[in-house]
Amino acid sequence: MPDKAVLVVHSGDFDKMYSALIIANGALAMGMDVSMYFTFWGLQRLKKNGLGKGPLSKMHMFGFGKWMVRKKMQKSNVASLEKLMEDYKDLGGKIIACEMTMEIMGVRKKDLHKEWIDDYGAVGTYIYEAKDAKITLFI
Amino acid sequence: MPDKAVLVVHSGDFDKMYSALIIANGALAMGMDVSMYFTFWGLQRLKKNGLGKGPLSKMHMFGFGKWMVRKKMQKSNVASLEKLMEDYKDLGGKIIACEMTMEIMGVRKKDLHKEWIDDYGAVGTYIYEAKDAKITLFI
Amino acid sequence: MPDKAVLVVHSGDFDKMYSALIIANGALAMGMDVSMYFTFWGLQRLKKNGLGKGPLSKMHMFGFGKWMVRKKMQKSNVASLEKLMEDYKDLGGKIIACEMTMEIMGVRKKDLHKEWIDDYGAVGTYIYEAKDAKITLFI
Repeated sequence: MPDKAVLVVHSGDFDKMYSALIIANGALAMGMDVSMYFTFWGLQRLKKNGLGKGPLSKMHMFGFGKWMVRKKMQKSNVASLEKLMEDYKDLGGKIIACEMTMEIMGVRKKDLHKEWIDDYGAVGTYIYEAKDAKITLFI
Repeated sequence: MPDKAVLVVHSGDFDKMYSALIIANGALAMGMDVSMYFTFWGLQRLKKNGLGKGPLSKMHMFGFGKWMVRKKMQKSNVASLEKLMEDYKDLGGKIIACEMTMEIMGVRKKDLHKEWIDDYGAVGTYIYEAKDAKITLFI
Repeated sequence: MPDKAVLVVHSGDFDKMYSALIIANGALAMGMDVSMYFTFWGLQRLKKNGLGKGPLSKMHMFGFGKWMVRKKMQKSNVASLEKLMEDYKDLGGKIIACEMTMEIMGVRKKDLHKEWIDDYGAVGTYIYEAKDAKITLFI
């Protein structure tokens, strides 16, 4: 069985979503299995059009606004979050949506990109995946 | 020996405390050993009445204030942080308080819920626990 | 081969840099190998004079400003970030700078403390290090 990386995506910040998906795709590209468990603000990013909406975690620092980071990313041929998510799914990455968050924040299945989601689960689903993982991260 | 999960709780944000305790209790419920190492803003949550005081990490996003999240949690029968902490201790979860943070931030033992705390330690205590853990997270 | 800890340093917050370096030095002191992968706001901290510039992640909470935390740290004989980084390098800690971040944010090698950096890499370098690590954290 291949080595596994299991990521909790709690933050919905634009830049942290980037780190999460880049790490996830890197692990897939190197032959690992990857599961991402989306919860709290991270879950909001699974909404339709949700990937374009996150703020930078430090928007006002260093003079970088989201627009500027996007523009620089385009110039540097860095993929958009949407493209990174497509690649993630194409490479076989697994997504678990946190049911408790959905209930608390009033998110319905029809609000989400259902085609990305492999499972709707609770913390037990996460622990079951994570306890045999080589890489575990909380993002 | 059971598998182990070891969490650094650096953030004191209300929502991150939730994720931390839910993951911790989930791991305990599935038979793992769990240690949480509370440091910096996380340590403040171990103060008397500290669990009710954290801000949301994204309080102004998505229209969710802390009050609203609490209300929704009650309606969804999601336990309060206080209840989650009680469950954590009842299930055998271990808490280590960071002594360096106590010194820097002027926190005295008598300010803390001493009955929750198993150990007052430094980074060596954390590393010793974490190096054999299956799940390591920084929250 | 010694056990390994591999940290992604995504945040540039002053207090999170502290936690990262204290954990890293603690792991080195206990005989582990340590690699830190600096990306996004974390990478900014590798700039010349960059270690003095990070904000606290919760600057306005609890009445602690950065100046006050520094003062208290000095009184408590807690090392400065600069000193912690020196110790990290002296103890054999490895630093990888994220090339993608450098390109996106317009950071040139000459802007950085090149003497600290062991490798300029992409996500593959990180995964290669992390997949055999005992401790993996995203900070």
